[in-house]
Amino acid sequence: MGLHRVVEPAGVLPQAAWRLDARPEIAPNEVRIRVERLNLDAASFRQLWEKHGGDGDAVRAEVLQIVSARGKMQNPVTGSGGMLIGTVEQAGRRSPLGLQAGERVATLVSLTLTPLVILDGLARWDGRSEQVPCDGYAILFARSIVAVLPADLDPQLSLAVLDVCGAPALTARVVSRYVADRQRAGDPTPVRVAVIGGAGKSGSLSLAAARRAGAARTVGVVPVVAERDALAAVGLADSVALADARDPVALSTAVTTALGAPADVTVVCVDVPGCEHGAVLATADGGTVVFFSMATSFAAAALGAEGLAADVTMLVGNGYVPGHAEFALGLLRSESGVRALFEARLAAD
Amino acid sequence: MGLHRVVEPAGVLPQAAWRLDARPEIAPNEVRIRVERLNLDAASFRQLWEKHGGDGDAVRAEVLQIVSARGKMQNPVTGSGGMLIGTVEQAGRRSPLGLQAGERVATLVSLTLTPLVILDGLARWDGRSEQVPCDGYAILFARSIVAVLPADLDPQLSLAVLDVCGAPALTARVVSRYVADRQRAGDPTPVRVAVIGGAGKSGSLSLAAARRAGAARTVGVVPVVAERDALAAVGLADSVALADARDPVALSTAVTTALGAPADVTVVCVDVPGCEHGAVLATADGGTVVFFSMATSFAAAALGAEGLAADVTMLVGNGYVPGHAEFALGLLRSESGVRALFEARLAAD
Repeated sequence: MGLHRVVEPAGVLPQAAWRLDARPEIAPNEVRIRVERLNLDAASFRQLWEKHGGDGDAVRAEVLQIVSARGKMQNPVTGSGGMLIGTVEQAGRRSPLGLQAGERVATLVSLTLTPLVILDGLARWDGRSEQVPCDGYAILFARSIVAVLPADLDPQLSLAVLDVCGAPALTARVVSRYVADRQRAGDPTPVRVAVIGGAGKSGSLSLAAARRAGAARTVGVVPVVAERDALAAVGLADSVALADARDPVALSTAVTTALGAPADVTVVCVDVPGCEHGAVLATADGGTVVFFSMATSFAAAALGAEGLAADVTMLVGNGYVPGHAEFALGLLRSESGVRALFEARLAAD
Repeated sequence: MGLHRVVEPAGVLPQAAWRLDARPEIAPNEVRIRVERLNLDAASFRQLWEKHGGDGDAVRAEVLQIVSARGKMQNPVTGSGGMLIGTVEQAGRRSPLGLQAGERVATLVSLTLTPLVILDGLARWDGRSEQVPCDGYAILFARSIVAVLPADLDPQLSLAVLDVCGAPALTARVVSRYVADRQRAGDPTPVRVAVIGGAGKSGSLSLAAARRAGAARTVGVVPVVAERDALAAVGLADSVALADARDPVALSTAVTTALGAPADVTVVCVDVPGCEHGAVLATADGGTVVFFSMATSFAAAALGAEGLAADVTMLVGNGYVPGHAEFALGLLRSESGVRALFEARLAAD
């Protein structure tokens, strides 16, 4: 778990630590990665971008300052990090991860708990995108999750998918449960799924996952016309609706209109604060909201549902589900709509 | 939903509003309550208490300032509120709540979305307890949840139970699901439940609810010897363990030792920050953590589970479950151990 890398405060896990020891010498159960690219969490990048008014140099300077001070990339405001790709430089003899020097990998654990040193001052990054070219090194622990990059896919494409691979896996699990429960009960009511932020990375994968898990009706909700057109063009959702997720009444009206009823499962994939109440209102009694956005407020969700007397189950989107990397990469390979959205996004970056 | 009472910002629900319109004139679907007592949320009171170094006058002044500025009692740091008891003064002719003037009631929706005016300057409160004697009025909306206080119980006892009645109801629902799934699968493995903060209000009710729902082994975890002895004396849990919930390794070791294995369901009822990682570590793969503490950090929970590669379901504790008030009051009436802990707590206040 990397407890020995925690500098302060003592006794916490690496993710909760203020500062990690990022020294390059590895313990027998650790692995050192030579980093080639960081992928900042969307909520974190947005916060930095807005704080500095779109000044890329200032964004870069703050990322360098954070990593230097903390020994890891963890935005102190959002608490979130991101992930990285690189090459295995040295694998300890007792590491259970099964990695060999020279393998190209992506980390599936957050940067918030990964010891990291940046060596090039991020000289090749303009501070204007979540994708950060970077020379440096990072340390993986025994319980870290890591994926060897597939040979058939562009590494940046794989990284973009792996960054959000927990979302489709958990969406599939939750939707499957509703489908199975209805089948067991002989209830022919279709399972309805809404994905808020359906044109984004986690959103488009979640739409594909919901359909594959047996959702009979799906809607992707997006905030702007360009995203509506892009999502509608690839056919990943039965319908696409335009609404501001921060407006509870507008969001719930859009979802209910598109699905013919409130959603059984609502998946929140937008990285802006204030979407909790709309998601709850858009969900049927007995339904489930899955919050994947790091901008989610625990108190707003808990008190919002109570205040609305809404009998909904609310899940904290866990980024880890067994088999999540393979499942998400499989969706990318088999769903041309997912691939089209990802490739368009990378081309625009 | 009370949208017409939102002053700023426009378009949000009352819980998310910075300021509510607390005028006493009611709309046809509203109810006005004459308040006799507020019950501040534990996380909110603790924050105020610590901020002011235990100066009760300063705590009182800040509560007055908050209610005056916001038209509701919502701690700006914790985001949480509490609840109230009072008497129905006027019920609008189109209110669906079925209340009559003169009935004594407790609100089961949070103070964070309840228009409130304090009329007596909280002159009868010393600022040193969560229980706040108060003359004033509050407004209920059509979708508000309210309970008429039972005649057979002391009102303060009812209020203390109703304040946390979502926790035992949701705990029972989650535990029942594990019990039913194992029965259906013919799996004789006992369902194990850990309640962190087991001697508190929501904790003791959750322990009783877990046992009633079929948990075969339960442990209550508490931070101090006095609580350990009090919880052990009333027999609500199969075992009682002493551990600091903010220390992940200590907490998970205590739970696993007491239950003979990690918990299938871990219920977090302690109102201090930093318990997310320990709760995840204490829970078995395939298990569920239910976070009832308003001090829970969404990001710490999400990233902590991912960082530990922990396949656990994490629930945001929704304060509303249908039938929650009756269920919790029933536990108080039938479980002498619950009642003993509640009465001791009220006597100490």
